[in-house]
Amino acid sequence: MKIKNGAEYIESLRKIKPIIYYKGERIKDVTRHPSTAPHVRAAAMTYALASDKEYRDLATATSHLTGKTIGRFTHVHQCIEDLIKKIKLFRVLGQKTGTCFQRCVGFDGINAVYSVVYEIDQKYGTDYFERFKKWLIYIQEENLMVVGAMTDPKGNRSKGPADQPDPDQYVHVVERRSDGIVIRGAKLHMTGAVNSHEILVMPTTAMDERSKDYAVICAIPIDTQGITLIFGRQTSDDRRDKRERIDVGKPSFGAVGGEAVIAFEDVFVPKERIFMDGETEFTSPLVYRFAAHHRANYGACKTGLMDVLIGAVSYLTQIQGTAKASHVKDKVTEMIHLCETLYSSSIACSAEGWPTASGAYMVDTMLANVCKQNVTRFHFEVARLAVDLAGGFLATLPSQYDLESEDVGYLVKKYFSGVEGIPTKHRIKIARLIEAMTGGTALVESMHGAGSPQAQRIMILREGNLEKKINLAKALLGIPQKKSDS
Amino acid sequence: MKIKNGAEYIESLRKIKPIIYYKGERIKDVTRHPSTAPHVRAAAMTYALASDKEYRDLATATSHLTGKTIGRFTHVHQCIEDLIKKIKLFRVLGQKTGTCFQRCVGFDGINAVYSVVYEIDQKYGTDYFERFKKWLIYIQEENLMVVGAMTDPKGNRSKGPADQPDPDQYVHVVERRSDGIVIRGAKLHMTGAVNSHEILVMPTTAMDERSKDYAVICAIPIDTQGITLIFGRQTSDDRRDKRERIDVGKPSFGAVGGEAVIAFEDVFVPKERIFMDGETEFTSPLVYRFAAHHRANYGACKTGLMDVLIGAVSYLTQIQGTAKASHVKDKVTEMIHLCETLYSSSIACSAEGWPTASGAYMVDTMLANVCKQNVTRFHFEVARLAVDLAGGFLATLPSQYDLESEDVGYLVKKYFSGVEGIPTKHRIKIARLIEAMTGGTALVESMHGAGSPQAQRIMILREGNLEKKINLAKALLGIPQKKSDS
Amino acid sequence: MKIKNGAEYIESLRKIKPIIYYKGERIKDVTRHPSTAPHVRAAAMTYALASDKEYRDLATATSHLTGKTIGRFTHVHQCIEDLIKKIKLFRVLGQKTGTCFQRCVGFDGINAVYSVVYEIDQKYGTDYFERFKKWLIYIQEENLMVVGAMTDPKGNRSKGPADQPDPDQYVHVVERRSDGIVIRGAKLHMTGAVNSHEILVMPTTAMDERSKDYAVICAIPIDTQGITLIFGRQTSDDRRDKRERIDVGKPSFGAVGGEAVIAFEDVFVPKERIFMDGETEFTSPLVYRFAAHHRANYGACKTGLMDVLIGAVSYLTQIQGTAKASHVKDKVTEMIHLCETLYSSSIACSAEGWPTASGAYMVDTMLANVCKQNVTRFHFEVARLAVDLAGGFLATLPSQYDLESEDVGYLVKKYFSGVEGIPTKHRIKIARLIEAMTGGTALVESMHGAGSPQAQRIMILREGNLEKKINLAKALLGIPQKKSDS
Amino acid sequence: MKIKNGAEYIESLRKIKPIIYYKGERIKDVTRHPSTAPHVRAAAMTYALASDKEYRDLATATSHLTGKTIGRFTHVHQCIEDLIKKIKLFRVLGQKTGTCFQRCVGFDGINAVYSVVYEIDQKYGTDYFERFKKWLIYIQEENLMVVGAMTDPKGNRSKGPADQPDPDQYVHVVERRSDGIVIRGAKLHMTGAVNSHEILVMPTTAMDERSKDYAVICAIPIDTQGITLIFGRQTSDDRRDKRERIDVGKPSFGAVGGEAVIAFEDVFVPKERIFMDGETEFTSPLVYRFAAHHRANYGACKTGLMDVLIGAVSYLTQIQGTAKASHVKDKVTEMIHLCETLYSSSIACSAEGWPTASGAYMVDTMLANVCKQNVTRFHFEVARLAVDLAGGFLATLPSQYDLESEDVGYLVKKYFSGVEGIPTKHRIKIARLIEAMTGGTALVESMHGAGSPQAQRIMILREGNLEKKINLAKALLGIPQKKSDS
Repeated sequence: MKIKNGAEYIESLRKIKPIIYYKGERIKDVTRHPSTAPHVRAAAMTYALASDKEYRDLATATSHLTGKTIGRFTHVHQCIEDLIKKIKLFRVLGQKTGTCFQRCVGFDGINAVYSVVYEIDQKYGTDYFERFKKWLIYIQEENLMVVGAMTDPKGNRSKGPADQPDPDQYVHVVERRSDGIVIRGAKLHMTGAVNSHEILVMPTTAMDERSKDYAVICAIPIDTQGITLIFGRQTSDDRRDKRERIDVGKPSFGAVGGEAVIAFEDVFVPKERIFMDGETEFTSPLVYRFAAHHRANYGACKTGLMDVLIGAVSYLTQIQGTAKASHVKDKVTEMIHLCETLYSSSIACSAEGWPTASGAYMVDTMLANVCKQNVTRFHFEVARLAVDLAGGFLATLPSQYDLESEDVGYLVKKYFSGVEGIPTKHRIKIARLIEAMTGGTALVESMHGAGSPQAQRIMILREGNLEKKINLAKALLGIPQKKSDS
Repeated sequence: MKIKNGAEYIESLRKIKPIIYYKGERIKDVTRHPSTAPHVRAAAMTYALASDKEYRDLATATSHLTGKTIGRFTHVHQCIEDLIKKIKLFRVLGQKTGTCFQRCVGFDGINAVYSVVYEIDQKYGTDYFERFKKWLIYIQEENLMVVGAMTDPKGNRSKGPADQPDPDQYVHVVERRSDGIVIRGAKLHMTGAVNSHEILVMPTTAMDERSKDYAVICAIPIDTQGITLIFGRQTSDDRRDKRERIDVGKPSFGAVGGEAVIAFEDVFVPKERIFMDGETEFTSPLVYRFAAHHRANYGACKTGLMDVLIGAVSYLTQIQGTAKASHVKDKVTEMIHLCETLYSSSIACSAEGWPTASGAYMVDTMLANVCKQNVTRFHFEVARLAVDLAGGFLATLPSQYDLESEDVGYLVKKYFSGVEGIPTKHRIKIARLIEAMTGGTALVESMHGAGSPQAQRIMILREGNLEKKINLAKALLGIPQKKSDS
Repeated sequence: MKIKNGAEYIESLRKIKPIIYYKGERIKDVTRHPSTAPHVRAAAMTYALASDKEYRDLATATSHLTGKTIGRFTHVHQCIEDLIKKIKLFRVLGQKTGTCFQRCVGFDGINAVYSVVYEIDQKYGTDYFERFKKWLIYIQEENLMVVGAMTDPKGNRSKGPADQPDPDQYVHVVERRSDGIVIRGAKLHMTGAVNSHEILVMPTTAMDERSKDYAVICAIPIDTQGITLIFGRQTSDDRRDKRERIDVGKPSFGAVGGEAVIAFEDVFVPKERIFMDGETEFTSPLVYRFAAHHRANYGACKTGLMDVLIGAVSYLTQIQGTAKASHVKDKVTEMIHLCETLYSSSIACSAEGWPTASGAYMVDTMLANVCKQNVTRFHFEVARLAVDLAGGFLATLPSQYDLESEDVGYLVKKYFSGVEGIPTKHRIKIARLIEAMTGGTALVESMHGAGSPQAQRIMILREGNLEKKINLAKALLGIPQKKSDS
Repeated sequence: MKIKNGAEYIESLRKIKPIIYYKGERIKDVTRHPSTAPHVRAAAMTYALASDKEYRDLATATSHLTGKTIGRFTHVHQCIEDLIKKIKLFRVLGQKTGTCFQRCVGFDGINAVYSVVYEIDQKYGTDYFERFKKWLIYIQEENLMVVGAMTDPKGNRSKGPADQPDPDQYVHVVERRSDGIVIRGAKLHMTGAVNSHEILVMPTTAMDERSKDYAVICAIPIDTQGITLIFGRQTSDDRRDKRERIDVGKPSFGAVGGEAVIAFEDVFVPKERIFMDGETEFTSPLVYRFAAHHRANYGACKTGLMDVLIGAVSYLTQIQGTAKASHVKDKVTEMIHLCETLYSSSIACSAEGWPTASGAYMVDTMLANVCKQNVTRFHFEVARLAVDLAGGFLATLPSQYDLESEDVGYLVKKYFSGVEGIPTKHRIKIARLIEAMTGGTALVESMHGAGSPQAQRIMILREGNLEKKINLAKALLGIPQKKSDS
């Protein structure tokens, strides 16, 4: 693995020149621009842990393709232990960054594509799997960051890809040449896109026969001609952009991953980088496997974040002299309880993992969906409890400029102090951290990342096997079970 | 009433020169400074409705002191109908501003102080009530905006006022002169303070004998010598400060009320403006009555906000083509249900209103506390559902600069469109409105405004009359009731 | 009012001989049969309060038809005060019986029918209103108990009345004669039916043109030929039937109201007792008005029950020595909070009452539906908290026969004791009361009485006025509102 | 293993004669008495599965003591796989019985005692471990059912064992002889006690030095002199006792496990059956380990029950014609979601299992407590949703005697029918099953079995490692961490 640590990752980004816009201007260097650098630093942590003795076992793996040591984010899960290590790694990364480290999307994309293209080849005698392995060995050797690009704009959501007035609302093939294809469209909400090396394009939903041109998987370097990225806004992003070290909340890292639109304006993809082209019946397993892997993560990375948040709130109650109140302890207990309930599902869906035909391991689909569904509830409740315990000054605290002002700084210091002996600045920093972690973008991401809540409910019902459950009830009552049931 | 509409209110603010700091700089004119003007406009709406035929009945009242028509915000409730009209007025104001209109704090302060100082005079033969009525007539005639100043910094919260290492953590009298008193301390989270004319200082908690100097009620013009205001930060406030009309969410109004620290550095208060000085046993009813009135409001103003939010989400689902999905309708139903549950308690605590000895009407304490307690839960849940229905682009949407960019504007317009015929700009504006109304400051205010959740629980238990309930159970079982019970 | 107290009511029941079956046997005298007597006693309380000085003002009213004093349960609401008194009366009755007192169904039926048949006459020139007033004066003079009979069996719920394979799944007219009609069908879940004097038959749902025969309102004495009642089972009903005074929980009153099937096998109804016959477009307002009145009650009677339950739990924690634990106090607080939230909506929908064309007052539909919807959640949560605080012995406690056994009674007394000085029997009685009030039938009734939860959600969405809310959002953003919106 | 199947287990019970009282009478044969037989049958299922090819792998294990095949319920977990198999076995048993199969308590007792007495010996050089292994080999060889006896009466709960006015409120040693001890006291809520062979007595809470006599572990045959059992009541137990095959809900099995008081009136325990006597500092780990194992089970057995309940409700909605309504599908989805969330924690706490010094495997304490805590919430919510979907007739349905009555049976059949072609009897049986599984005892057990909710919260906070979490927050903010933290 060529990129061995965070510094080398950052260095590698400086060598590529993707076209990125933000607030109407081009960003030249994502590693130095104040709006993107904090997100780069969070992704860099995924590289850093691989060179940290304490975490090396979690952060690296042995490639089943080459036998070499690789970054875990480029690995195809070979066993249940791999699945569980992923979860533990993600919780640590959440704890160390307090934010999204972005690289899981490509990781999950690699794993979903690997097992599905194997099955396409089995059915059609295509050579997608060989192409994909070649590309994957390249990614492993270079240790590149891949953005898993799935979500299309979707236009009018009451219509499918083939029925949109504007055909570009889903990424599709607009031209087929002997040496490759040309694609058009866009992917939205692309976490980590601006600081990735490669894009792994995948279909966003199960397609039918009429949508053959939309059933495409391929890999594209981020700085390929025809690709434009537009970096999105986040809650209170100006504090980040103005490098306000206190008011920004997390001085080193971003609110969440830093998402971007990736627009593909007639982008050429050479043959060896195409891994699906028109095999519509495989879009459904691709999406479900990707989604299951991705949903499993949320009980890991978000519980890492919650650990930070619980710690922040606990420290704040110590500063304010309320830590021993019974209702405070009860609310902290509830935060921990919800956090660990989420973690349970991440661990459980991994412990219940199973091998696909390709040998790659999948998590349990039901439990992974259950995991994400709970995140869309519990992260909000944990945030609500944090806001409760922190107090109203989260919403009324003067700025760091006032704290440091010659005119009024002494008033801020005096009137935002807590128990004696702890600097007011600690209280303010903690408040800003809690503010940053509990409002706006931070929670929207937990709601919609890895699919909106309704997407999980559809899977939970589908996996629920109602027929079997009905027969259990019938058996207890001596009611004959349907023939087809048995 | 001298100030008859919004424009006159704004004009009146230009004539006073309070000392206000924000981000380390002085604000010279709150009506024009981009950080405060939106909050001024929201408060101006309370004046505007009084001159609007449709709302005049709600927005004005007849003074029981002078018989003149006055702005309702300066009125002392004389009957249940007054209490209910307040609730209806506040819901309309919430609907028309989508934010906090700030002026209720002084309104509730006036009503709480009125009934309590009457009772002080009854007990001690003091003349606070006469002083207060004189001041109140002045407020009514001029139609001034009063900030109700209750919340002290509190320092180490495990200790009371008299035990703080720094005595200034609660506002207190530092000197008594023949013609008045000198006070020191600060009040935090002062909603609307920077655009108020007068401060009504009240104690923040029930005091004991040792805290005589802290038991003080008085009125002070906002630009009195010794008063400094520091205006607090809010989520994404730079968008407001940079006058970003789309990205700010609400182009005309603020996120919430605009809160400030009010520091009192040895401020002199003349005798005729002192309404309590040392009568510690009345601090408790003062706080509870103020709190009850104030907590009653939250099922009115916040339901007004929720009406806007529900409308915004409904429109967005129409734009996105999801409005008819059954889970969408169910979530919208839930938002309405929670909203109207809150409204129920505001109406109910008013319908169960009762006259104090002074003749001023109080809301039912239990139901008012129940109201606010539910706000600390339901506003978060309503926001969560809004975020669910809106979609992930809330957190990843490019800025208005990109929308308007020559380079990438066409991509933003294309890829953030919805059903045909509705401009992408509508979708984006609605998204920014929802973003502004569901994250950060907007919700913290619902949690802690009018007292933190635990404060309501204490009141709910206290008002719960467990002895009576125990006797009901005993009666059903034929178990003898305690003598003292009957 | 002829029946002036509970004893006279019970006496009156002995004079009529409806056909009632229970567990395969006929019940001859509902006032003495152990399975029905407790329910009779609860209904008798509605009569008893009218002769109790403390409650007379709530329990009686002045007839707007005759000017005489009547039992409130036979009154047509003439003002908001009437609506609020109903709520207060119901809470007291809930407190005094700890169960369903049944008589509200007929009360609400009378009020809904009164206002709707007035409107039928206005449209069609029929004389239903005069007929109804005559019948109502009779009910008022005699002070009879009326069962409001609405819910039909419904057969296959995916089909309407006219499409059922068995036409009798909804009550309908099978013959029209010059002097009256003959009806067939059944009404299910008829609360208080076995101890009522009269049945007020109403359609169960909005009917279309094809269902003319199903659109029928009429009044029938309970012992009319062709009527058969089958009394339903309840949780642990054998304890009641065996007159186990301790283990039954409530020694004097039933679990809930005592529900019965009423089967109509070709029952003749004379002309003067028919109040609707085929005016299908009035079935919808009839159902909605009845439902709104009835749903409003649940925040009154159920909060009365919750008062008893909170009292029982509080006393039990005193007996067990846990009353002062902070988590116990917090859970009791939560029980009170949920209870009073429900009460809020009952009060609020009454305070927002409005006059129909007939002069009869209606509650606010939205808030009444919100009330009942919350009951379907909160009663379960209150019960869950009660079970939590009571302890596991609720589920494992030996019987009263063991308590009184010569062989093992001393062991039960010894090992189920609590703090010194309180008899073990108190602890056991309280446990049985809590058991009876928190499991099975008691909660099912809160879920489905006055309509299942989904019925309320449909009304909440319908009343939600989304168009107006959308315009509020548009107004804030300067987006043009639809013409039709204004 | 001598007892090889359910029939042999039942046979074995007929050979012992414990003293059991129920409703004031002695029960002579628990296998035939209608009140206990259903519970015996559920326990028999644990034996039956061992001889069922499909489940043998789950239901048996290889003894690490003898190398022989044993029933899993007598096994000491040797690895993570053992822990996971236990969970899967319990879910199957829950599905097949729809109730508590009781035998887990002794299973968990064996596992907790095994690891703790090993550690006592390590510290004190005692020979408890050898004694225990001998006894355990006997249990394994005979394949006996052991009741784990932990919960004491506790008297006044604000006082510990040593401070109770009545010393017998906790089981304690009243005499020490050379050949053994004599104990007195009682254990409450003893699941499966009346149909167990042996009692494993354990302390109920952490003891201090003053409570040496209360720190006792020992094993006693159920029919030892001085032992009296009193079998407790359950919701609607008369239906069971009267062998009402339909109205009872589950015709073959009980509501829950069948709990009894075990009173010890000076019971002698020989030396070789004493495994702790006075080593108070080991009561704490004993209780926590037992509790953790036991709490882990609830996400397995209860999810088995929920599978049955979800199936019953699904079938009922098919019968009623509502299965395709979107709100019905959504509620079924929610039931599955909650069920699988619980299962996650059972799997996860097993997957995170760890070896004790003795080699026996423990589950993860945090996740096991999280599991049970959620059961105390989700089982109620799942039941609430079941009641919602089932409909109000759960609470009003006539008895099976009416269904079969010559007089009114045709009315019951007609008016409780659903969609054509499904017998009314199916609908009624399903309703009675749902009634039995959602009210009263069934839910109380989920609340308090394996410890009341507050017990789990104490453990969750204790295991939450707040210091570490505080340091995570400090690290992100550059705030120095406490020395002692590292």
